Amino acid sequence: MKKNMTLILVGIILVLSAVLVGVLVFIKNQPPGERAFEPLVEIDPREPDSSLWGQNFPNQWSTHQKTATNNVDTTYGGSSQFSWLERDPRQVILFAGYAFGIDYNDDRGHANALEDVRATERLNLDPDDPKHTPGTCYSCKSSNNPALWEEMGMAEFDKVSFMEIGARIEEPIGCANCHEAGTMRLIVTNPALDEALKAQGQDWTTFTRQEMRTVVCANCHVEYYFKGDGQYLTFPWAKGTKIDQIISYYEEAGFKDWDYPEAGTPMLKAQHPEYEFFTADSTHFKAGVSCADCHLPYVSEGAAKFSSHDVHSPLLNPEQACGQCHTDSEYVVRRVNLIQEQVAGTKQNTEDAIIDAINAIKAAAANSNVDSSLLDQARNLHRRAQFMWDFVSAENSTGFHNPEYALKILAESTDLARQAQMLAAQSVDDMSLLEIGTYSPPTPAP
Amino acid sequence: MKKNMTLILVGIILVLSAVLVGVLVFIKNQPPGERAFEPLVEIDPREPDSSLWGQNFPNQWSTHQKTATNNVDTTYGGSSQFSWLERDPRQVILFAGYAFGIDYNDDRGHANALEDVRATERLNLDPDDPKHTPGTCYSCKSSNNPALWEEMGMAEFDKVSFMEIGARIEEPIGCANCHEAGTMRLIVTNPALDEALKAQGQDWTTFTRQEMRTVVCANCHVEYYFKGDGQYLTFPWAKGTKIDQIISYYEEAGFKDWDYPEAGTPMLKAQHPEYEFFTADSTHFKAGVSCADCHLPYVSEGAAKFSSHDVHSPLLNPEQACGQCHTDSEYVVRRVNLIQEQVAGTKQNTEDAIIDAINAIKAAAANSNVDSSLLDQARNLHRRAQFMWDFVSAENSTGFHNPEYALKILAESTDLARQAQMLAAQSVDDMSLLEIGTYSPPTPAP
Repeated sequence: MKKNMTLILVGIILVLSAVLVGVLVFIKNQPPGERAFEPLVEIDPREPDSSLWGQNFPNQWSTHQKTATNNVDTTYGGSSQFSWLERDPRQVILFAGYAFGIDYNDDRGHANALEDVRATERLNLDPDDPKHTPGTCYSCKSSNNPALWEEMGMAEFDKVSFMEIGARIEEPIGCANCHEAGTMRLIVTNPALDEALKAQGQDWTTFTRQEMRTVVCANCHVEYYFKGDGQYLTFPWAKGTKIDQIISYYEEAGFKDWDYPEAGTPMLKAQHPEYEFFTADSTHFKAGVSCADCHLPYVSEGAAKFSSHDVHSPLLNPEQACGQCHTDSEYVVRRVNLIQEQVAGTKQNTEDAIIDAINAIKAAAANSNVDSSLLDQARNLHRRAQFMWDFVSAENSTGFHNPEYALKILAESTDLARQAQMLAAQSVDDMSLLEIGTYSPPTPAP
Repeated sequence: MKKNMTLILVGIILVLSAVLVGVLVFIKNQPPGERAFEPLVEIDPREPDSSLWGQNFPNQWSTHQKTATNNVDTTYGGSSQFSWLERDPRQVILFAGYAFGIDYNDDRGHANALEDVRATERLNLDPDDPKHTPGTCYSCKSSNNPALWEEMGMAEFDKVSFMEIGARIEEPIGCANCHEAGTMRLIVTNPALDEALKAQGQDWTTFTRQEMRTVVCANCHVEYYFKGDGQYLTFPWAKGTKIDQIISYYEEAGFKDWDYPEAGTPMLKAQHPEYEFFTADSTHFKAGVSCADCHLPYVSEGAAKFSSHDVHSPLLNPEQACGQCHTDSEYVVRRVNLIQEQVAGTKQNTEDAIIDAINAIKAAAANSNVDSSLLDQARNLHRRAQFMWDFVSAENSTGFHNPEYALKILAESTDLARQAQMLAAQSVDDMSLLEIGTYSPPTPAP
């Protein structure tokens, strides 16, 4: 018996020793940056050069670099920079008269942001043209921004021309856009976001880390507009971030992005309102999931566990992106595909309704006997219907970030578009404007 | 040391003994019926009297009896038999000219089915009227049915008048509607379901138990119609159970439930298509969840675990109904409420669009100069739009059983309703028919 007890005690000692060795090996294998407050290299808080940060955080940096080449498509989106105007020629009509009707490519990864904004045909670089492209267009394209905003102030940054401020911008999106070196905490760097949150009485410095893992994405992935002559970057959130509140904000501000040619509708272009869309009580948001949980999921390489900064569609790595919560990622992918199919189908019906409305309004506007009051009502409905459609269309998830919200918005948009068409027909007493299915593919430019 | 070892051994023996006693107590406390093949009482396979079955299955039977009094409402549905026509007066207009426009109460629990069908004002008991209520209307109201169907055949059952067959019907919905006594397996008892499945090449006798935990609900919770002079109960599934397939079936069959007064639209009334709606690739269905998992959840009383047969909305017992899979039932309830709110709001917009279409078609139909071809197109769109709306509206979950499907259908229905209105206006060249928001509450009958 005494011998047995000795064996048991020895066994316990061996197990404890093995566990201790394992823990020590694990600690040794942590990348240096994971011990957050002992950086190898001292970095300025707003340092634009991400490669310097990368010395402290080699895993995050090397995965971020992958965004330069992760140009892979999913069924409805992805990162290949395909042309929306070619994929969905209805958008050539919907954005006629506006820069997006000429060049509207899907976004590539973060590391390409600077190259891509400089290449887009949407730019107007003529400094003599009062509508030339302002510095504001660099707001979400570079890790030089936080330092420049701090140095110049955003008002000044936005006033300078795109060409002029461009001389000081060298880096694409990087570490400094979301992190503060030294503390490495997640921070709001875009003054427009800071102001928009404050306007709602929110102080982001009191947010939890998990909240910040969504809020930092709102540095860029939001609806915004350029306010006034100073082209001041502004988020239309003063009344709230729900679509009705945003539309109501724009109505009060009397803002328009462009006038629809021949129709005369004062239009609004939706940008990429992922933040507003996802946080509008989506099931994942309400369950406490952050943007980073799916788009910068934790991955293991060797003994190191870190947040992958190779940001892209979770459909490309569902085991990692969805698998933290969902055990059956094959099921999840089928589910996402079905939702996107339903949203894409409904979205196309909405586009058809809006195009019918546009054609009716154009015909009415060309008629000298038009009842202008009715026509203006039709234009207002067109404006709202198209912004609602665009809010879903420009949002980068084909509805998945908030499926019920997407479909509810599209249902209402379709209704408003049909109402716009009816009002246009009434404004000139012309039944032929009630034609349904007037969409025909645009003729290619010669 | 020796003394310690003895203590350890005695401890192990005590623990094992306690576990054994616990297991034996658990087995003893199992209700007799849970040992499926040793019933206390022998029951005929189609026995209508559920109280006899109840001797073998006291827990299932006592919970089933609760459906007689579980008349509790949820926000959008429930079991209190509230009047849909009072809660949503738009439905008085939508069902004008049809029995549902006179009496349309929400359903109470299973045990009230017989009383409630005999009390509804929808019945037409005049045997001299060729459109008098047929025996078919008892199809889903009684556990007498399976035995009567077996004895008479469904064709004969459906031909007999409601009054005549009623003399042989004494029991409300009960055990025999879904179970086979003796084996207690779940079975298809409704010949119309058997035929509809066969028409799709499906043989329910090969289904798994989990599949049957959804399919038996389709004995009743489906879209159906009365076919031909024999009022033969038929599920319109020959092309499939998706809404487009059902509409296409009805179009080919040339079937209508009634003509909309003054409009002349050949209308379709949707029944309660829970099965078709839920199985149209809903997230729960695709995840392998059955109807019974949520509506007849397993509950524990003492040492007995059994499926509660007190069928009602899971919103009334989310811990039991949702808690088998979801750890946070409070979150789940908030989620369901939000989805239902979104669907209910969109549904009301759809109703407004359909009512505008109805008013336009009525006005056009009253005009002798009408272009009948255009008017018929308008009627066809009205027919489809209203059936689509009704498919969502009559389905007992305010969209929750399949939220994206509900919203997608409502978006399309609204579009078709507006198109119907436009065609009606064109058919008589009358712009005034394009009025939007023509709904006004119906005047109460004197």
